Amino acid sequence: MTTLHDCQQRDAADPLRPLRELFSVPKGLIYLDGNSLGVMPKSAPARAAQVVGQEWGQGLIRAWNAAAWFDLPQRLGDKIAPLIGAGPGEVVATDSTSINLFKVLSAALSIAANDQPARRTIVSERSNFPTDLYIAEGLCAQRGYTLQLVEPDEIGAALGTDTAVLMLTHVNYRTGAMHDMAAVTKAAHAAGALVVWDLAHSAGAVPVDLTGAGADFAVGCGYKYLNGGPGAPAFVWAKPLHAQRTDLRFLQPLSGWWGHAAPFAFTPDYQAAPGIERSLCGTQPIVSLALLECGLDAFKAAEPLGGIAALRAKSLALTDLFIALVEERCQGFGLGLATPRDHARRGSQVCLTREHAAGGAEDGSLGSGAFAIMQALIARGVIGDYRAGDGGVHKDILRFGLTPLYIGYGDVWNAVEQLRQVLVSGEWKLPAFHQQHAVT
Amino acid sequence: MTTLHDCQQRDAADPLRPLRELFSVPKGLIYLDGNSLGVMPKSAPARAAQVVGQEWGQGLIRAWNAAAWFDLPQRLGDKIAPLIGAGPGEVVATDSTSINLFKVLSAALSIAANDQPARRTIVSERSNFPTDLYIAEGLCAQRGYTLQLVEPDEIGAALGTDTAVLMLTHVNYRTGAMHDMAAVTKAAHAAGALVVWDLAHSAGAVPVDLTGAGADFAVGCGYKYLNGGPGAPAFVWAKPLHAQRTDLRFLQPLSGWWGHAAPFAFTPDYQAAPGIERSLCGTQPIVSLALLECGLDAFKAAEPLGGIAALRAKSLALTDLFIALVEERCQGFGLGLATPRDHARRGSQVCLTREHAAGGAEDGSLGSGAFAIMQALIARGVIGDYRAGDGGVHKDILRFGLTPLYIGYGDVWNAVEQLRQVLVSGEWKLPAFHQQHAVT
Repeated sequence: MTTLHDCQQRDAADPLRPLRELFSVPKGLIYLDGNSLGVMPKSAPARAAQVVGQEWGQGLIRAWNAAAWFDLPQRLGDKIAPLIGAGPGEVVATDSTSINLFKVLSAALSIAANDQPARRTIVSERSNFPTDLYIAEGLCAQRGYTLQLVEPDEIGAALGTDTAVLMLTHVNYRTGAMHDMAAVTKAAHAAGALVVWDLAHSAGAVPVDLTGAGADFAVGCGYKYLNGGPGAPAFVWAKPLHAQRTDLRFLQPLSGWWGHAAPFAFTPDYQAAPGIERSLCGTQPIVSLALLECGLDAFKAAEPLGGIAALRAKSLALTDLFIALVEERCQGFGLGLATPRDHARRGSQVCLTREHAAGGAEDGSLGSGAFAIMQALIARGVIGDYRAGDGGVHKDILRFGLTPLYIGYGDVWNAVEQLRQVLVSGEWKLPAFHQQHAVT
Repeated sequence: MTTLHDCQQRDAADPLRPLRELFSVPKGLIYLDGNSLGVMPKSAPARAAQVVGQEWGQGLIRAWNAAAWFDLPQRLGDKIAPLIGAGPGEVVATDSTSINLFKVLSAALSIAANDQPARRTIVSERSNFPTDLYIAEGLCAQRGYTLQLVEPDEIGAALGTDTAVLMLTHVNYRTGAMHDMAAVTKAAHAAGALVVWDLAHSAGAVPVDLTGAGADFAVGCGYKYLNGGPGAPAFVWAKPLHAQRTDLRFLQPLSGWWGHAAPFAFTPDYQAAPGIERSLCGTQPIVSLALLECGLDAFKAAEPLGGIAALRAKSLALTDLFIALVEERCQGFGLGLATPRDHARRGSQVCLTREHAAGGAEDGSLGSGAFAIMQALIARGVIGDYRAGDGGVHKDILRFGLTPLYIGYGDVWNAVEQLRQVLVSGEWKLPAFHQQHAVT
């Protein structure tokens, strides 16, 4: 049996352990929800004070140049690039993931419509993150495309002569299952389709090599594993070949001033900037954007310690440990594993299912009990989150994100111990833990 | 002749003068660029520290509920509503002005395409803010519409049986000229067109009555007269009749999770929220969004002092004074007035033209000299901005925004005196003032 002492020894020997000191983890909390909102870097409050009090308060309009606000999308993009296998100048930080997905999916459709107009279908996963599907639905309705949703193991068969774009999220938000980006991209290209990747649960958590995989477009989130703060701007990448296309005047229709080739010429006609800058649109929320840099700088600090490869190795060790401890210590409570055991297919989270039949109250009124179990766990200071199933193939999920920048082996042991106590005590059956309210 | 003493006496007698104390105007600066980036409310640094250090740092994911992050778009929208003649629940603060314009213009086209499919033209002003035209261009290219650009006095004649949408900015960014919203809306409706208003230079500066005018859609900016901070999220309004339409599933295609009727149901199919919330898309930049509330609260504080009507009266007095002083004290330097003298047609800025022939250096190489004059003025601590002309009908512009919340009559006198000294001394001809760099 693995003991807490074993885990504490692993923490003591962990060369990445000092990175935790860059983050302000609230005392008494084991925070396993960094895949929803990352922990605050300690540098963030001072940076916020600087941007607000100094740059805005004192600099005012002059800060656009003096504080280099104009450079933020590119400067931050260049810090994201090495985490996702993109080159310098190929990524910008801007807007939200949903809006960036609209941009790249629009661009992919523009290219497909121009180069291969007979292709009229976007293929995606039925269990993709819902907002990705909503964006695709809206765009399909507007542009006369069809959205075809399939199960993960049906993707290869779904790719055909009608497929314009394959749109996938690299790491599934409900299960932590990860696609083989290179293989899937290759298969899509072989079928003649373009590939759009959503890296929301990948960037900063697992190594990504967009260039190596030959991907076409990607977007990702700033506030999950990149620790950029609540609603931090997202990022967008396009293969340079696509970003630089000049034959398509509106690669995507969010053609605002910041994506113009000469944004200060104030000419009445739109002319797209020649690279990924054409993905920029309107004026960016500078304070939120500036804070994203605090999160990105933690990855700079990780570089001499092995960078994203070392973080990945630790992440796998953490998720392995979590799985092992749950299986050692929480048997008999109807928990199952939704996350793949295969390292090559696992993101940085562990998702546990809970059998409906195992659920609370003798009359079955508590369903699987997963929601209440998570509430009880949160009350004990262990924060993960809950994702409802559909009553069918998708079961209710207890989701635990393990961010190797600030989570340790001891945290994992303690978290599983609290879970065990919640299950053994049955305290989750108390009415207080059954009131649902909005949680992202 | 008006003296500085006269102006100081007006300040002393100004019942709105205490509002200035809510803002952190840098010492030694006369800031006449609040129409580009408003001054920081004194409450902003503490609010930033709270959102970052407490809500994010300590609350983490729990802050979505505990700190009511989810309510911000609506709560802030309800504070904007009375400034623009909208009802409670009709406005949300979100995304950028450009992106919101894309949403409402998309929605207007969706309605037009459904109700009056033969109408295929968007009419706008050639001198509209360029990003508005870029967005319209992108959308026209995608949806097969034509963008027809006309001069302000040609709008009435341009409206016809082919007009789907009239898209205008209420107060022109280059001249400060204001449209008669009620009359123009009425004329457009008489022609069967929908009307989209951009209130970027109106909201918080002049009274706006969208409901009274019977307008269809509107967007506006959070960081100009609303003093929300650099790149603060913008706002969006739709006539409830439009926002509540259920026959058009995708009123606009930026159909992200936050605009879903049940955002936490995580259903794979999009179903739009039943009101203006359908304009929400992805996760918002919470820190920037929260800071916008500091700016909006200044308008709450202005309410017992007469609110937006009293601010408007002061704004007109300030712009009247500015015009009078320039005409009294800066004669003979080739300055002209771009801003209408008619109160009913004037926003909250004064824009001066500078004749090209009057421009610097005996060889004419300095053009109108307007750019350099503004640089020299900024060096003296008076911040306005410069907008280049087109060498034809649009002259180079010196632009001065007069925000009645924090600008006084004495400021106006001192600003014009500094302008006079720049012109009399000819110091603007120094090479240091001729280097152009990006200024928004």
